[in-house]
Amino acid sequence: MTFPVVGMVGGGQLARMTHEAGIPLGIRFKLLSDTPQDSAAQVVSDVVVGDYRDLDTLRDFARGCDVITFDHEHVPTEHLRALEADGIPVRPGPEALVHAQDKGVMRARLDALGIPCPRHRIVSDPADVAAFAAEGGSSGPGGPSGEGGGGRRTGFPVVLKTVRGGYDGKGVWVVDSEAEAAEPFKAGVPVLAEEKVDFVRELAANVVRSPHGQAVAYPVVESRQVNGVCDTVIAPAPDLDEELALKAEEMALTIAQELGVVGHLAVELFQTRDGRILVNELAMRPHNSGHWSMDGAITSQFANHVRAVLDLPLGDPRPRAKWTAMVNVLGGDYPDMYSAYLHCMARDPQLKIHMYGKDVKPGRKVGHVNTYGDDLDDVLERARHAAGYLRGTITE
Amino acid sequence: MTFPVVGMVGGGQLARMTHEAGIPLGIRFKLLSDTPQDSAAQVVSDVVVGDYRDLDTLRDFARGCDVITFDHEHVPTEHLRALEADGIPVRPGPEALVHAQDKGVMRARLDALGIPCPRHRIVSDPADVAAFAAEGGSSGPGGPSGEGGGGRRTGFPVVLKTVRGGYDGKGVWVVDSEAEAAEPFKAGVPVLAEEKVDFVRELAANVVRSPHGQAVAYPVVESRQVNGVCDTVIAPAPDLDEELALKAEEMALTIAQELGVVGHLAVELFQTRDGRILVNELAMRPHNSGHWSMDGAITSQFANHVRAVLDLPLGDPRPRAKWTAMVNVLGGDYPDMYSAYLHCMARDPQLKIHMYGKDVKPGRKVGHVNTYGDDLDDVLERARHAAGYLRGTITE
Repeated sequence: MTFPVVGMVGGGQLARMTHEAGIPLGIRFKLLSDTPQDSAAQVVSDVVVGDYRDLDTLRDFARGCDVITFDHEHVPTEHLRALEADGIPVRPGPEALVHAQDKGVMRARLDALGIPCPRHRIVSDPADVAAFAAEGGSSGPGGPSGEGGGGRRTGFPVVLKTVRGGYDGKGVWVVDSEAEAAEPFKAGVPVLAEEKVDFVRELAANVVRSPHGQAVAYPVVESRQVNGVCDTVIAPAPDLDEELALKAEEMALTIAQELGVVGHLAVELFQTRDGRILVNELAMRPHNSGHWSMDGAITSQFANHVRAVLDLPLGDPRPRAKWTAMVNVLGGDYPDMYSAYLHCMARDPQLKIHMYGKDVKPGRKVGHVNTYGDDLDDVLERARHAAGYLRGTITE
Repeated sequence: MTFPVVGMVGGGQLARMTHEAGIPLGIRFKLLSDTPQDSAAQVVSDVVVGDYRDLDTLRDFARGCDVITFDHEHVPTEHLRALEADGIPVRPGPEALVHAQDKGVMRARLDALGIPCPRHRIVSDPADVAAFAAEGGSSGPGGPSGEGGGGRRTGFPVVLKTVRGGYDGKGVWVVDSEAEAAEPFKAGVPVLAEEKVDFVRELAANVVRSPHGQAVAYPVVESRQVNGVCDTVIAPAPDLDEELALKAEEMALTIAQELGVVGHLAVELFQTRDGRILVNELAMRPHNSGHWSMDGAITSQFANHVRAVLDLPLGDPRPRAKWTAMVNVLGGDYPDMYSAYLHCMARDPQLKIHMYGKDVKPGRKVGHVNTYGDDLDDVLERARHAAGYLRGTITE
């Protein structure tokens, strides 16, 4: 058989779950992992242990792969270009991926496309942050989202982000004054200032696009963060205005097409108090806000990501249940979750547990649970109870 | 974390799909495979290549496993007893598994339990087959299923089976006369004669039982064979009388309990023209008649098999859709299925394809497809079309 080989760079849980989704598809999976103990390396047959920042390692790894895709966004853009020059399909490609790697590039591009974002500007020092806060032009209704424009002053607090390398709240600061704004500049990397958006909740629009341009949109979900880390996802987002949902899906499909994304694209969104949606972040890989789809959709984000990077026809993204809830399982104080795990299975025979094989450390994502059903309160209670019990914050 | 290691003996597709189901459970999977190319060996990290018929190989493999389970029934009973004596939990254990290994032992035990079976007897030569055919005592309503009893003569055709080693129609003969009955005795192994049951269809009752005695029953399915090989499974069995369905489930649960089965038990059944159910075969592992559960049930047979052998609480076996159909994908004349596969995905975005990574040979099981929905005709048409297209028997 000529079933292809998918090369996955990065051995985290996203790679693990992509492999799981690839098994029924009959594709071969090859993994480039930092260590043999990484989440995905535990469950994949063909593992290369090596450093993705080293071009020779990447080139060796890519030999024998029909396509390269990623568990994370950290592979240097120039390495991806070198692989493409070698004739290896890289999906998403470097020209798309840079928008998920560099928040400055992403904001500039979304501005050019007329996609609404929080007001933002690259800043060079704390005084510049104060100047940004003093400028006018909020991302009000109809107003431009980029620099300039009229309206009220941005004001403090201001959100500061390193343009590269941040995730799960790392590389992000919320500062209330010029004096507080010193920290982000210490690393000497470019910093993006953004208005602190007055949002009522966070949403995510997940889409998958294939090289020949087929695309599917998952229902828009609500994503609840705790301490900057995704905690709960509800699919579909409860009480979301149908027109706004459609607008969010269209926005994500537009971004995927205009940026030439191949594979899964997560568009993290703010829903503002005045009823607008603004783009917060982009991720070009399977995403935490799409984990619900493993048990809640006809085709999971992981299966569709694999299909997309191989340019196979995409699967149906529609939900299989009225409501699906995903709650992340974070490490607690006890390193052994197995007895809690047994308890959760006994309490709820419908519970879908997804463990990542990672050592438990306080606050570390070590798994997630999915629940689904017709009653949202029940679905949420079951997922929260299981995740809390596994973490050790619920003991009965 | 102290998540356990499951040792799987056998590298076929059942092992492959069990590994797939084990990934989200966070368990470690160790495989004993005949070759590095076996279906499961392609997707598992920790593979030992070796011969399961060699006790030293089994013992080496079992070190570091928390439990041993199986992809097939061919491991010699005495080896399993030796592993148990070494202190390794073997699930299902040898005393249970022998009933799936030896049809003579199975029939004798089911007789003793009063479980209805086709009329049967161990036969020693063609003349003995003729004598069996001439004997009275069909497995009529209320009559004994074993030897003796009154009623009409069994008559030809008679079904002859080697008591060990048969599967998918291999090791089974249907003979119309004493003269035709010579073949099965040539191998010099014990042969079981059975009446050819006048059945309207075949059913399967699948149950899963854990060491501490928890058990769950999947809905009874209809199983359609072509040339002795499972072709189509419909879950639940259409138009099955509720009382008969309950009786079949209870029968399977009784067998699981009385034989001390741990893990998945498939009870293949004949539904007779006169409205009875008779046990055809037993399999103590995930089974082709349970593949529908991967997409059609809340918890798949594979996930529940893993949970059972680890003595974890079992998952909900109920269906997620009104109808689920499974059709096996057999190899056709063309070794490359990939372009057909692409076509099937494009035609039906809801189709669930499960490929086993096996080389295509005519008639060989290389995968299966699942479809589900509210309309049985549509569900069946979609599954049959996809399987036929992949095999090459449908070209449009």
